Amino acid sequence: MAATGAALWPQISMGMNFQAQKLRVGMIGVGLRGTNHLSNLLMRDDVLVTAICDIDQARIKIALDMISENGDAKPQVFGKDDLDYRNLLELKEVDAVIIATPWLWHTRMAKDAMQAGKYAGLEVSAANTMEECWDLVNTHERTGTHMMILENVNYRRDILAVLNMVRQNIFGELVHFRCGYQHDLRGVKFNDGKEPYGKGVEFGEKGISEARWRTQHSLLRNADVYPTHGVGPIAAMCDINRGNRFVSLTSHATKGIGLHNYIVAKGGEDHPNAKLKWKQGDVITTTIDTSNGETIIVTHDCNLPRPYSLGFRVQGANGLSGSGWQPYLY
Amino acid sequence: MAATGAALWPQISMGMNFQAQKLRVGMIGVGLRGTNHLSNLLMRDDVLVTAICDIDQARIKIALDMISENGDAKPQVFGKDDLDYRNLLELKEVDAVIIATPWLWHTRMAKDAMQAGKYAGLEVSAANTMEECWDLVNTHERTGTHMMILENVNYRRDILAVLNMVRQNIFGELVHFRCGYQHDLRGVKFNDGKEPYGKGVEFGEKGISEARWRTQHSLLRNADVYPTHGVGPIAAMCDINRGNRFVSLTSHATKGIGLHNYIVAKGGEDHPNAKLKWKQGDVITTTIDTSNGETIIVTHDCNLPRPYSLGFRVQGANGLSGSGWQPYLY
Repeated sequence: MAATGAALWPQISMGMNFQAQKLRVGMIGVGLRGTNHLSNLLMRDDVLVTAICDIDQARIKIALDMISENGDAKPQVFGKDDLDYRNLLELKEVDAVIIATPWLWHTRMAKDAMQAGKYAGLEVSAANTMEECWDLVNTHERTGTHMMILENVNYRRDILAVLNMVRQNIFGELVHFRCGYQHDLRGVKFNDGKEPYGKGVEFGEKGISEARWRTQHSLLRNADVYPTHGVGPIAAMCDINRGNRFVSLTSHATKGIGLHNYIVAKGGEDHPNAKLKWKQGDVITTTIDTSNGETIIVTHDCNLPRPYSLGFRVQGANGLSGSGWQPYLY
Repeated sequence: MAATGAALWPQISMGMNFQAQKLRVGMIGVGLRGTNHLSNLLMRDDVLVTAICDIDQARIKIALDMISENGDAKPQVFGKDDLDYRNLLELKEVDAVIIATPWLWHTRMAKDAMQAGKYAGLEVSAANTMEECWDLVNTHERTGTHMMILENVNYRRDILAVLNMVRQNIFGELVHFRCGYQHDLRGVKFNDGKEPYGKGVEFGEKGISEARWRTQHSLLRNADVYPTHGVGPIAAMCDINRGNRFVSLTSHATKGIGLHNYIVAKGGEDHPNAKLKWKQGDVITTTIDTSNGETIIVTHDCNLPRPYSLGFRVQGANGLSGSGWQPYLY
């Protein structure tokens, strides 16, 4: 959201007193992720949350309580239906929005935000199809409104340390990268409809939180559905769209057995979900070629028991980073 | 070579005294690798080296000295031209051969050995083309003579420990594997024509030992030219050709800058070899699909400065091996 500060720069550059004008933020989605963003925003003196939106009234109450406990004015509330966020986007009292909603809403909400002239911070993965990728680019170029993908892994201290090493040319000319999302999400994809994590084997209508919408992607799509935790930091390091480009890729999926095994182990063979055929392979390996002649291996590995690891490697003419970067949960 | 012991088994199984009949071995190639095999054979009481072959008389002398110092009878010597090994294969005094020669000789010598009825231990990678792979299979099936690829990594203690875990089903149903050959070979591919390793930037006619023939492959072929250190152990673990099959693969090469950089750094910009265009990419990433629905990532990474690592991973329904198996140089 740093880009939204641009309006303040003239005051600074002219040497005038910096009279902080608060940034007025609307929250689209105040689930677990959205309220995490909210608590960060509430810690800032230069931000005011002027509007919130969620179709889940329980989450609206939680967000309102957080804002009230912070001593801030009650924001305007939206969420009477799926498209009520568009009314939030009409508000003069909103400069920028944070979008933390289910994946299939990301691009359409970001497009609407840009068209409404609101700077948009968009949760990952942002887009689900090639068409949606182009929608984001084209809408930004047409409207001139800034949109930032909130890829948090780019800002991990270990990633920033390695990025700094890349910028200082420690590795020399870059040749090869590895990255990915290797995170056992079985306890996130299923729950008991009461607690978000770790208990039960329900999802969709009978689940809550991420299990309510995220799990369906594993049922219907055989793909790396969540590549940006890995490829986001690497794209920054190898200057993608800043002189370098992704030019082609191949992708291989293993069989998918992890989610079925989990359902049977926790819910029994007779649980209705034990009959489901999961399309998503347990480990997806994608290898990308860049126009500068590097390759990038991107891994998606979220349905099997394993320790958390993004599996990063940065390799160049002079040496390479270790493969065991410290695990840090996101 | 264990298969050659089969002739002795009836004596054992009938409870007779085990009257060791020595296995008579012919050595085809007594370079650095061949003499390494030779010193292992000389430690055995049940093996006699009856013939040696090499076109390099300096290596013949070294091998003869080793045999003589061991108190063994002088073997018959071959090597007057490239095809003199065929005369070695005619000997009645040879039961089996070890073939440790440049790569392009592997398959033709192993074929000739099988056709001559000699059990053959064949150094890796054994074959250089698909046609050569089929040559080995077809010749074995037609002659009934045993041929064993001497993939040493299969017998590392760490590999055997993980193979044992696989056989005990510790990892559960297998899903994904990683392996490869990540070994900085710059000091092997180039030398000064006097010492085999580490000094100089010569190869081919001006180099000795592996630099004399191995380096040319990097100049002319953009491929993983040495896959078996990685894929050999994994093939054993996932029962390739014992119920499972490799069914398809993709392969990606990075640019190749490592060998050129090495020549310039050690030999200067004006060295004639600094003008060469190396075809081999520095990092080759191959992903194989198996008929059981697993994937295997195979890495070839031998032209850049890096610590040695085969980069193994064995991943199944219940868990996975660590990625940091202890380095051990081969």
